[in-house]
Amino acid sequence: MKTHTPIRLGMVGGGKGAMIGEVHRIAARLDNRFALVAGALSTTPERNAESAAACGIASERTYDDFAEMARAEAARPDGIEAVSICTPNHLHFPVAKAFLEAGIHVICDKPMTSTLEDARALERIVAEADALFVLTHNYSGYPQLRLAREMVARGDLGALRLVQVEYAQDWLSEDSGSKQAAWRVDPEKAGAGGSIGDIGTHAWQLARFVSGMVPDRLAADLTSFVPGRRVDDNAQVMLRYASGAKGALWCSQVAPGSENGLKLRVYGEKAGLEWAHETPETLWVTRLGEPRQMLRRGAQTMAGSRVPAGHPEGFLEGFANIYAEAAEAIRAHQAGAPLQTLLPGIRDGVEGLEFVDACIRSARADSAWVEIGRD
Amino acid sequence: MKTHTPIRLGMVGGGKGAMIGEVHRIAARLDNRFALVAGALSTTPERNAESAAACGIASERTYDDFAEMARAEAARPDGIEAVSICTPNHLHFPVAKAFLEAGIHVICDKPMTSTLEDARALERIVAEADALFVLTHNYSGYPQLRLAREMVARGDLGALRLVQVEYAQDWLSEDSGSKQAAWRVDPEKAGAGGSIGDIGTHAWQLARFVSGMVPDRLAADLTSFVPGRRVDDNAQVMLRYASGAKGALWCSQVAPGSENGLKLRVYGEKAGLEWAHETPETLWVTRLGEPRQMLRRGAQTMAGSRVPAGHPEGFLEGFANIYAEAAEAIRAHQAGAPLQTLLPGIRDGVEGLEFVDACIRSARADSAWVEIGRD
Amino acid sequence: MKTHTPIRLGMVGGGKGAMIGEVHRIAARLDNRFALVAGALSTTPERNAESAAACGIASERTYDDFAEMARAEAARPDGIEAVSICTPNHLHFPVAKAFLEAGIHVICDKPMTSTLEDARALERIVAEADALFVLTHNYSGYPQLRLAREMVARGDLGALRLVQVEYAQDWLSEDSGSKQAAWRVDPEKAGAGGSIGDIGTHAWQLARFVSGMVPDRLAADLTSFVPGRRVDDNAQVMLRYASGAKGALWCSQVAPGSENGLKLRVYGEKAGLEWAHETPETLWVTRLGEPRQMLRRGAQTMAGSRVPAGHPEGFLEGFANIYAEAAEAIRAHQAGAPLQTLLPGIRDGVEGLEFVDACIRSARADSAWVEIGRD
Amino acid sequence: MKTHTPIRLGMVGGGKGAMIGEVHRIAARLDNRFALVAGALSTTPERNAESAAACGIASERTYDDFAEMARAEAARPDGIEAVSICTPNHLHFPVAKAFLEAGIHVICDKPMTSTLEDARALERIVAEADALFVLTHNYSGYPQLRLAREMVARGDLGALRLVQVEYAQDWLSEDSGSKQAAWRVDPEKAGAGGSIGDIGTHAWQLARFVSGMVPDRLAADLTSFVPGRRVDDNAQVMLRYASGAKGALWCSQVAPGSENGLKLRVYGEKAGLEWAHETPETLWVTRLGEPRQMLRRGAQTMAGSRVPAGHPEGFLEGFANIYAEAAEAIRAHQAGAPLQTLLPGIRDGVEGLEFVDACIRSARADSAWVEIGRD
Repeated sequence: MKTHTPIRLGMVGGGKGAMIGEVHRIAARLDNRFALVAGALSTTPERNAESAAACGIASERTYDDFAEMARAEAARPDGIEAVSICTPNHLHFPVAKAFLEAGIHVICDKPMTSTLEDARALERIVAEADALFVLTHNYSGYPQLRLAREMVARGDLGALRLVQVEYAQDWLSEDSGSKQAAWRVDPEKAGAGGSIGDIGTHAWQLARFVSGMVPDRLAADLTSFVPGRRVDDNAQVMLRYASGAKGALWCSQVAPGSENGLKLRVYGEKAGLEWAHETPETLWVTRLGEPRQMLRRGAQTMAGSRVPAGHPEGFLEGFANIYAEAAEAIRAHQAGAPLQTLLPGIRDGVEGLEFVDACIRSARADSAWVEIGRD
Repeated sequence: MKTHTPIRLGMVGGGKGAMIGEVHRIAARLDNRFALVAGALSTTPERNAESAAACGIASERTYDDFAEMARAEAARPDGIEAVSICTPNHLHFPVAKAFLEAGIHVICDKPMTSTLEDARALERIVAEADALFVLTHNYSGYPQLRLAREMVARGDLGALRLVQVEYAQDWLSEDSGSKQAAWRVDPEKAGAGGSIGDIGTHAWQLARFVSGMVPDRLAADLTSFVPGRRVDDNAQVMLRYASGAKGALWCSQVAPGSENGLKLRVYGEKAGLEWAHETPETLWVTRLGEPRQMLRRGAQTMAGSRVPAGHPEGFLEGFANIYAEAAEAIRAHQAGAPLQTLLPGIRDGVEGLEFVDACIRSARADSAWVEIGRD
Repeated sequence: MKTHTPIRLGMVGGGKGAMIGEVHRIAARLDNRFALVAGALSTTPERNAESAAACGIASERTYDDFAEMARAEAARPDGIEAVSICTPNHLHFPVAKAFLEAGIHVICDKPMTSTLEDARALERIVAEADALFVLTHNYSGYPQLRLAREMVARGDLGALRLVQVEYAQDWLSEDSGSKQAAWRVDPEKAGAGGSIGDIGTHAWQLARFVSGMVPDRLAADLTSFVPGRRVDDNAQVMLRYASGAKGALWCSQVAPGSENGLKLRVYGEKAGLEWAHETPETLWVTRLGEPRQMLRRGAQTMAGSRVPAGHPEGFLEGFANIYAEAAEAIRAHQAGAPLQTLLPGIRDGVEGLEFVDACIRSARADSAWVEIGRD
Repeated sequence: MKTHTPIRLGMVGGGKGAMIGEVHRIAARLDNRFALVAGALSTTPERNAESAAACGIASERTYDDFAEMARAEAARPDGIEAVSICTPNHLHFPVAKAFLEAGIHVICDKPMTSTLEDARALERIVAEADALFVLTHNYSGYPQLRLAREMVARGDLGALRLVQVEYAQDWLSEDSGSKQAAWRVDPEKAGAGGSIGDIGTHAWQLARFVSGMVPDRLAADLTSFVPGRRVDDNAQVMLRYASGAKGALWCSQVAPGSENGLKLRVYGEKAGLEWAHETPETLWVTRLGEPRQMLRRGAQTMAGSRVPAGHPEGFLEGFANIYAEAAEAIRAHQAGAPLQTLLPGIRDGVEGLEFVDACIRSARADSAWVEIGRD
């Protein structure tokens, strides 16, 4: 138990009816490292007031406009130290820009921006800002995936050969018309990528996080299965790494029976790893010729854990690990002693958009191999 | 999103080095329904001050003595509305008594007391108090177990025949000497029951919660496997219900490979249910002659959920459901409109101690069948 | 590949409509170590002729009477060398007696006899016979259970503390009236034990096979849930071993959702083992403080395997392992060089009936502890 | 129980040290529908004699040359009615040709031939032969995959959108030098495809068997990871169907921790199916918005079963289902009443080689989409 003064936090987006806003708030609250004190949560003034009140945000710190919020909070002596961005994708860029330029740390949902152009512009802004930028690729907060990364990094698998990653859902199998669904299938709000932006970027980031490698080429086949849908809802992607390693990425939002099926398998010359989101506390490891081992959160790893092995932890705890680590990094930054962390950030964000961009370029070229990040 | 004013909460016990104290704090915080403002967390003044500071409790509301805390907080206009009790078992009774008599709601860890006598005395106190008493049998907060209860209650299984429940751990397989372990194997602090009190009562409560029935007789065989241990670390118990149903309860803290293995199976004339703690979001249901069904949190049930199916939730969320429901009940009580809830309370506590007592009586009589609650 | 002359095999019982007869025939055939050449398969002459023809048995070696078959086959120069007994339980004794006394090796289904008296009488007959007696407790033919036995025997688990075994089915949840069901619930044919004889003896034998220990006392609660049933269809049994180890055995034929759910868990001071029939090729092993290991047939064990890891083997292969080993033993016996094997035999049979007998004695004494084999 | 006269069977290849030969023999024997009476099992006369003796084949029907065997057996009044071909791939064609032209039914291991040219030549021979040709794509013998096929065919899934199939192994992760491995990585014996021929064709056939569709285009990336290996040991393949459905096929022999990991997922507008080889008796089905169902061999399907649900069946039983069905088909053919069956045959074989051929053409064109079967 260490004593921490909670970081003053604001939030943009994530008001009533937004699942991900509540996720950010719980994650921020779980370890008592943040206090939510300001917000521009919803788009209409009435909804906004209502959302803010429900979050316990005082009315004088409830803003109808994010730019005004950035200005006003930067000016207050007790202004927010960090802001969480939970808007639809196309607003991530202007909001992040406003707060970073006001010297306020940013914790931003993914995909980072709706265009690669924005992503690169944001990269330049981050480079010059006196504030941290954290991207909530929350899956990298799972302890067993941190362990997986460590095993790869220290050579337990030998030279890597294969990275198989997938993320399958079924909730967009039909045109549901829900609010959650609506903006995700609208290219003006989500960006040109549908499933590749919404969940493909998670799979992409996770594969990189664990393998330590970014593919240099990909070949993609994108599909929109639901009639009238303007963005992809399924993608088959083949991957090539500079080292000679190969891989595949499959993401889908039209696979009935798939809840939130993120799965990663990494194979090297000497061993293989397997992790699936439905059992996030288990990392399977097999060294060639040896029995399969089941490495468990809380038994083989304790970092990032709140309760011992056998007391299931999951999505919110993994998400909260990102927030807790962001709190550490922010406090260290304020103390002038920047931390080395595993936090996903601006680089992950740019790479995510490079992935989306490359998928679209390849798909337009009838799945030809394209170089990633060399558009 | 509804607007809630957090309930002012105090805590007794649960200071540095106590796993369960942190669990209560996270559960209280998760839904923003409680604010921890006072405490008597540790036994020495220095540790206590340190623990309180780490929890953000002001020094003037940090108490070295729980009785003083009950008095002082009851006298404050902004005094705590509820208290969480996370001490070793033998202190649950005096602490609960002090706060209940001060009109402060109590949220108490289990087993409720260290003796059946205390449990019954507490039952009388609760009956007369103008305050609620909640017992954190947290497993009953899991949505899929609530669903199981509902299915049994509405007759999906037909008349029940069998209740098989078990709770196996391995962390006391050796004499570890850890602080967590120390008081649990000390009959002065834990009570006469070892594993039967610590985890057997959880299994017992859960079987009752789901089946809706309490056995009227049991036959038990208690064992202390670790040399020098003064309480049981393993129990085999056979159960008989008044209806003619039968059952078995096994609890063990010396079963290598068992993390926190709570498992419940209930069988009726028409169908069977199965639930295991390692996959808490899944309830298995089989109707005779039909395929097995996998009922999932977030897909088939949403109550008590924070994120959709496929985003794993677990122990802390289930625990937080008890806290969230306690908050509802407290606010309703304050409004003079008591709620009907599924919250575990004084009855579960008394029954738990009756179970422990019956096990000990049966064990002393060479596993003879004894009546439960008729000592 | 070794050259083997198939052993000439006869069969008593197991005609049309009998599941277990076909299982024995497939098991005998699988490794080409037996040729079925004589039989008394069904009870009426017409059915018998039909059954024999379907098995390719010549009409002159199709017998309506097992005693006549024993005499006639013993007299033929090309007479059967071994006989498989697949009748209802109450006939096992007279049939086995007839063939053993004729010097013909016996492979008998379980439970060995319908009474303990018969079991002991058979034990004396076997002791004097110049023929082998094999009891098809087939589960002990699974490679991973052989591995489990070996690990216990060589001390990998340290001193054993706990043996938890269960065998749950649901096919007798209702009064189905099927032929398979009919004799099993008729005490004149099945013996005094219902589920305890039919599947409890399997669980009992397996626990002994792996642990290497037989309990010396048990306390049992037997129930007949289906109205009108004259034998038990559910049993809760607590076990005590001379060493101080404890255990529990649960068998049930009224547990909806349970197919053929045999499960064994053995815990010692240093490690625990877990095996379940639904995944028979996997043995789970956990040494205290180490990751759980998944030991797989074909990967970590090859003995008793026909195909490599990942090519699922199951019930018939395990059963065939008993037959293959019986063939080895028979040939060795004929060569005057008796083998040491792990084959279940007369001792397992007597112990099985001692288990049934003890359960019934304990149940009559209101679940008092009774000594096993000391009636 | 029906009476069957066993079919007289010969075998070419599959002598000592060949895993697959023993598999064919067990499968042929399991249901007593075949009797092995002739063979040309091994390549040297000594080994051949030894192999034949071990199989109980008389020396006068042990042949050193398959052509001689075809001639001699065709001439005998009691000559073989069918032959099993278990040689390395490149010999499948000449052997099949010899026996088909001799009017002897052929049961051939896969892939059907080592070149597409041979496959097409064989197709013409089969068309003109008065004998059946069965290809042992054994996975289509699993009852739950037959059920899957049926569900797709009757529209339970609605229009299909996605077919994800994979087959991962790890046994060629290193250059082991085993006999099993040696010919599989020799393009002269295996054909131009390595993993795509050996296991990719299985995945391909299975996807077609269940979905009822053959892709019309594919894009493939083939890799040889093990230094010096002359054929692919890993393939990523993207699939396009004429209907607009998409798919992916991954096969690998260098994925540590993968035993024999065949897995199929099929998604339609209304429902999804999932099957994995490690639990072959379970078919998972999810209709959009409904609970996941676990359909079990022996409970929901009985065809192709030998024992009830819960008695695990596996690889050999599935393989034996192909043999049993071949026996039915052969007897019907002999009776002049040809059967409609689901037996894999010449078409599956040609399609398999078309798949291999298309993969190689695509790989040579830097993974361009190529038409399948239009070389």
